[in-house]
Order: sequence, then C-alpha cells, then structure tokens
Amino acid sequence: MQGSGNLRGFTNLLAMSNLNSQTLDHFNYKPESFTCFQQRYVINSKYWGGANTSSPILVYFGAEESLDYDLFGIGILTDNAPRFKALLVYIEHRFYGKSIPCGSSEAALRNASIRGYFTSAQAIADYAAIILHIKKTFFAKNSPVIVIGGSYGGMLAAWFRLKYPHVALGALASSAPILYFDELAPHVGYYAIVTKDFKETSESCYETIRKSWDEIDKVASKSNGLSILSMKFKTCEKLKRSFDLKDFLDSIYSEVAQYDHPPSYPLNIICRGIDGAPKGTDILGRIFAGVVAYMGNNSCYDMNEFNRPNDETYIGWRWQTCSEMVMPIGHENNDSMFPPSPFNLNKFIRKCKSLFGVRPRPHWVTTYYGGHDLKLVLHRFASNIIFSNGLRDPYSSGGVLENISDSVVAVYTVNGSHCLDILPEKKSDPVWLIKQRKTEVGIIESWISKYYTDLIMFRDRTRVSS
Amino acid sequence: MQGSGNLRGFTNLLAMSNLNSQTLDHFNYKPESFTCFQQRYVINSKYWGGANTSSPILVYFGAEESLDYDLFGIGILTDNAPRFKALLVYIEHRFYGKSIPCGSSEAALRNASIRGYFTSAQAIADYAAIILHIKKTFFAKNSPVIVIGGSYGGMLAAWFRLKYPHVALGALASSAPILYFDELAPHVGYYAIVTKDFKETSESCYETIRKSWDEIDKVASKSNGLSILSMKFKTCEKLKRSFDLKDFLDSIYSEVAQYDHPPSYPLNIICRGIDGAPKGTDILGRIFAGVVAYMGNNSCYDMNEFNRPNDETYIGWRWQTCSEMVMPIGHENNDSMFPPSPFNLNKFIRKCKSLFGVRPRPHWVTTYYGGHDLKLVLHRFASNIIFSNGLRDPYSSGGVLENISDSVVAVYTVNGSHCLDILPEKKSDPVWLIKQRKTEVGIIESWISKYYTDLIMFRDRTRVSS
Repeated sequence: MQGSGNLRGFTNLLAMSNLNSQTLDHFNYKPESFTCFQQRYVINSKYWGGANTSSPILVYFGAEESLDYDLFGIGILTDNAPRFKALLVYIEHRFYGKSIPCGSSEAALRNASIRGYFTSAQAIADYAAIILHIKKTFFAKNSPVIVIGGSYGGMLAAWFRLKYPHVALGALASSAPILYFDELAPHVGYYAIVTKDFKETSESCYETIRKSWDEIDKVASKSNGLSILSMKFKTCEKLKRSFDLKDFLDSIYSEVAQYDHPPSYPLNIICRGIDGAPKGTDILGRIFAGVVAYMGNNSCYDMNEFNRPNDETYIGWRWQTCSEMVMPIGHENNDSMFPPSPFNLNKFIRKCKSLFGVRPRPHWVTTYYGGHDLKLVLHRFASNIIFSNGLRDPYSSGGVLENISDSVVAVYTVNGSHCLDILPEKKSDPVWLIKQRKTEVGIIESWISKYYTDLIMFRDRTRVSS
Repeated sequence: MQGSGNLRGFTNLLAMSNLNSQTLDHFNYKPESFTCFQQRYVINSKYWGGANTSSPILVYFGAEESLDYDLFGIGILTDNAPRFKALLVYIEHRFYGKSIPCGSSEAALRNASIRGYFTSAQAIADYAAIILHIKKTFFAKNSPVIVIGGSYGGMLAAWFRLKYPHVALGALASSAPILYFDELAPHVGYYAIVTKDFKETSESCYETIRKSWDEIDKVASKSNGLSILSMKFKTCEKLKRSFDLKDFLDSIYSEVAQYDHPPSYPLNIICRGIDGAPKGTDILGRIFAGVVAYMGNNSCYDMNEFNRPNDETYIGWRWQTCSEMVMPIGHENNDSMFPPSPFNLNKFIRKCKSLFGVRPRPHWVTTYYGGHDLKLVLHRFASNIIFSNGLRDPYSSGGVLENISDSVVAVYTVNGSHCLDILPEKKSDPVWLIKQRKTEVGIIESWISKYYTDLIMFRDRTRVSS
C-alpha cells in the first residue's frame, strides 16, 4: 500500500509501509491464514535520535476508524517527538481504513469466515508483529517502545502492556473504559455522567431535557403528533416514530458530554441554546434551540445523523460490540435525565445473533484481559501503565481512577472529557489539561530513564543463565 | 466424558467433569468454533479447606500426553494438598487423551482445518476458561490459584502466569525450557549436557560412546555390515541403514540423561553396563552391553522403540514442533560425544511443510510470550513464577537459571534431572531433592500468605474507583 492520497498532507512522513502478508490468524496454523491481509502503518523518523542512542519509539494504536483521521487528530506523538527524540509509528487496526483482510470492508464483514478474525486479541498480536518488524528494520533492538491509544485504542494499549511487556515498555491508555465489561462497572455509569455534566453546567438546561421526553411522548400520542414533532424539529424526513427523535437527541447529549472540549465546550453551547431561548418558549422549542445552537441553523436535521449504516466505524464497532466488546450501557438510574431504558443482555444477544449469526461472549474480555479485582491482581504484577481520564467523560465510569501501584497509575482531571490528553496541544488549552499532559510525559520519561539504567545493568546479556 | 476406566484407580477422585462445549477457537468468532470440543479435567476436593477459608486451588496443566498418566505421575499436588488444604485440579491439554476436538485424535490431526487449533495460546486459554468455570462452580472467587506444569507443561504454566495473572496467582514451571526458542539458547545445549552427564558419570563410558559412532560406520561400510550390526545389536528387524541404530542409541542416551532419576539412576545403569563388560569386549560389544543393562535382556531390540508413529504424544508433539514449538536442537559441538549433526532450520521447515502443508513459525513463541532479554523485561514486571530445574537435565540448557526478581525466581539443583520436583515424593529421595521441593513449597506459601494480606486490604472492593 505504497502512497495514499489521503496522507499527502502528512508532511513529516518518511515512510509509509505495509507489512507484507500480515498473519490473518495469529492463533491458528491454517494455510489460508497467511495469504490475504496487508496492514497499513506509518512511520515518521524526522525526530528520531537513532538506534545508536536507543532513542524511544512512540507507537499509536489505531482503533475503530481509518488511520487517516488519527494522523492529524493525535497530537501527543508529534508534540513530544522532539523532547523524546522519538521514532513515531502509527498502526491501523485490522478491518478499518486500508487494513481490510481479503477484499473490501463490506465483503470482509459480510463473510462469516473472515469477520471472525476481527478481534482485539488478533489486533494486538498484529501490533506486536509490526513493532518487532520495525525494531528489526531500524536496528532498534534497545529502543524502548511506548504504546499510546485512546478510548478502545486506549484499552488496547493497556492490554498490550499486560500481554506483551517484552514488546512495549509502557502504555498510555487514554479514556480507556477497561472496567465497562462483565458487570464490573454499573450499567448506568455512562448516562449518569452525561446527566451530571448537564446538571453541573446548567440546572435549568438539565431540567428542560429531563422533562422533554414526556413532552415528546405527549405530542407524539396526538393524532397528528409525528407531523407536529417533524415540523417542530425540522426533520429532513417525516418522523415514522418518536423514538427516532429521542434517539437523535440522546446521541447529541451523549456526544457533547463525551467530547466537551475546550475552548468551545459544545455542552455549554447546547445549554446556552436551551436556556437562552426567548422567554415563554416551550420545552420542545427550547430543546430545538439547543439542537440549532449545536448543529447550526440548517434547513433540516437528519434524525439518522448518528446511525450511519455506511460508515466503517459504525459497522465495524457494531461487530466488535456484538462479539467481544459487550458494554452494558443503559439508562436505568432514577437520577438520570433520560427515561429508563435498561441494558438487557439477553435482548442484546438475540439482536447480535440475528445480525451476525454469532453469540456474543460477554465474559471473554475479562477472561482474557482480566478486570475483576484489578488492584488485588496487579498491584504486585505489571508496571508502566498510565490510565488517563477526564471525569466529565461518560466513559470514565468504566475507567481506572485509582493508582494500582507505583507505576500503574491513574491520572485524571475533574474537568476533562474524552481523550483530550492525546489531542494536539493548543494555545487555548486550560491549565488543568496542560498539567495532565505534563504529568503523563513526566511519568513516561521516568519509565524510559529507569529502562536505560536497566539496559546498562543487563547489557549484552542476551539470555538469563547462571 | 463422565467416568473413565483408566481413572478408576484414582481413589481421591471427587468429580470427573467435562466442560460442555469448550471453545475450540478462543480468538475467533466463527460459528463452527463452538460446537465440537469437550475437554477433560479432574477435580479432587478431598483435602480442600473450602471457599469460606479461601483455601487455594492447585492446578496441574496437562502437556503432550493423556491426563491418565499424569494423575499418578504427578506427586506434588497430592503430596502438598493437606498442607495447603488445596482443591486439586488436573486439566488435559487439547488434542491429547480424551480432549480431542471434533472426532478422533488421528482424524483431528489429519484435518488441516482442525489441527490449526492445536496451539499453546489456545491451550492456555482453555485452562483460563476451565479455572474460571471451576472457581464459579465452587464459589471460590477468593481462592488463590497456583498452576503447575513440567517440561512443555511447565512452559505453559510460566506463560499462563504472564498472560493470565488475574486467573493464577503464581506458577511452578518445572524443567521448562522457555529459552530454547529463536536462537536464545545455543543449539548445542541439549546434547552438550547429555555429554557432560556421561562424562561426569564415567569418563571411560563417555569415551566408549564417543568412539562408537565411527565404529558403527566402519562396520556398516563393509559388504555385509548391516547384517553384522543387526546381529551384534540383536535388532528385531534387519537394519536397513546404520542411521536407525545410531538414532536408537542417541535416543537412549538422551532419555537416560533427561530422566536420570534417583534412586536407580538409569544413566549409571547404562554406564555400568558399558564399563562392566568383560575385559577385552570391543567398543560395539560394550555399547550393546549398555543397551542390555538399560533395557533388560530381551530376545531382540526394536530400533523404532523411540519412533512411535501411532503414539499420540509422538504425533501431537511433532505437529506442535512443526508449527510453533520450533526448538533448534542439534549436535554441533566438537565437545559432544555425538557426531556433528547441526540443526538446519530451512531443512526443518521444508520437512514440516511436506508433512503438514504449513510453514512453521519459529519466531512466534518469542513474539507472543517473550524470551529475549528476559531479566531486562521482567525484573520490574511480573511476579510469582518459580523456574525449577535440575542441571543434569539436558533441557535445563533452555531453562531460566537465574532469579529475575524477588518473586520470579530460579530454583535448581546441580544433580537433578527432568521434572523430578513434581514427581511423587519417595522415601529414597536424596537430600538435595527434598530441599528443592521444600524451597518451592515455601515460596508458594509466601505468595499465598501475601495474597491473603492483600485480600483483606482490598476486600469488597470489586472495582477500582476513586
């Protein structure tokens, strides 16, 4: 996969490589496992101090989207490359972007034999193979590797350090909800934080939203209710059911809470819209004012904005959640601003079976990666993982928010949202975000510094013997 | 798999269970992965202190043979069950014994689609699933699990602690040559130790063996040479090539060195045979006297004694070495008592490809489990692994013989051979073996004691949160 139009803007690009014949199934020895999978990764060596100085390698783990977006969206690698004299590597996750096994993304996901290889364990085995390949190619045997990822990619980074400590010295797992599995975190966690974010931003905004669902139902129940709602919310197509409107609003509120980033703070924008509507505006009018404030003054609003059946992230992640990434997210709390809609595992399993013909394995993530009694298990085992979170991020409800040991640590900010720390630095960044990043970089520096000490101590001892 | 004639003698047997529908492919989501694999494991709860006391669970990891043999051959579990008040669990390795996926052992190995699932990563994932299942069934959430294995099973135990620290608190890896991969250990290591064992036992025995290979070749090169050799060595069938005789002798010497156990010490027996032949006996006569001393006075000797094409261990292990367990064992050293016959990876790969149609992956073990720079990687990561070895065991050349950290430790004896420490205790055991076992049990006790302290400290904290 030499050259790619999408990546032309990536000016520091030294090499864009493919690993010929990436192994499709790392855990099998079937002949067909070795034929049809090329994986994309990108290397930037502009800042690298070189193998002679054992300068580090920072590796970004792609997650549920094309690598094209990450190259510009992820700032922490380029922002810190000069300081670390680091070689930068970005690896695309299998089944996304250009890293599709055996044909097109659509075909791969339609094929029951191929999509079975679409798992996190296979993905991190890919990462291990590519990193070892790059270390060999760059004669960088002694260069420490730090892996970095956000959200699902952050989970992969943490799990990678646990499973492949011989490949990565440490991991920065940003906004990684590794505890949102197998009943570890309360189902309600996600929406409880969305609710809290709104309540803290504006009590009246929160109240308006909380009351709006009944109001929507009330209007919908009228004989021409769906027409009224369609007009009130300028829907591009006439609503077929009130659920679609509620789902659209739910998605907006979740999105703004999850990505409530400085300096614009989209959650504020919505609430200013809702609260700032002319005096006397009714509840649904205020809700609509919030939509307009967030999405702009459009001629109409697409209720399917957030259900993108042609979007690879949407499709791929649906497979992943229907196989192993079973996160029991629901509205259950009385204290939520959303109507109750509990997560129902059996219903979820039935839906996934009908979609893919495969039964989800909701306990596999904790079987393979752990999660139960994390502190008990890991405080004398493992090292060098940063779990970073912003407590206003709904996914922080499944995050690790307490230090597990001296070097498996939680770095969180009260005001932060989803994955803020790995985005590019900006002049407008608030102090707490600058501080969080500084803490993380300092911790990574201390890992590398200890590693160099160890390296001198153990140098030229290629194996352990008496 | 309820009930089994082979296991009737196992008097302490409480339950012999099968895990219904063990997952055939843990790393895939293909529908066919869930149908045809039942796995055998055996539980002995006679000594168990019970879940209320969080008494430990000792789990023996089956390796390349039927579990039937291990139940009697492995003493360390029953010997220590009363002391630990332990629940004992023995799990059979997939593709051996009664744990054959989708049909007979022969059929499973003939089928390229099925035998692909015959890997160590799948096997330890089986072990994780079964242990978690048992802990659930016995309400033993807080019972610490110690996994134990020998040789290949010892590698699995060590790797399991590294990959599944949330399932097993610690591992005893007996005679586990985890460094015999990917050029970590010298190819010659195995036969260098066989040679050393013979030399230390009897210089004249060693010299006789060292000279015998040329002598065999000399006789074989005569016109009726193979007949002479066949008669001299009472072969059951007339030799077709001298290689078969040399291979037979090589296997005997390797076996006696590997399993040179007290009180009989078979290596001594052979050397007493060789050295004790009547004065004037020629070299080949002495070699044959060694064979008779070791194997008994038989009417004839089967040169295929050690090549058992119908033996499941032989067949299964050949697949395993031809896929991932590529151990470069050869005769290369001038200092060996064997004729030079270096390990040739390309030749090995060609042979495996012709046998199974699949290319071995000699670097996969170190990619997945690590091995390079073990001390550098693990001294700040991981905990609670004992690597036990006897230095007279040829496989100790690929073993871990140095402490890696406070709790990842090497316990070896100068005089020990293969897996002695996990065999049943005997009155005749030498002091050094008693001491090795005592050291190991003491270390395991200390892990469990620390775990109980941690358990009290973290009790009722089901997840980490601030």
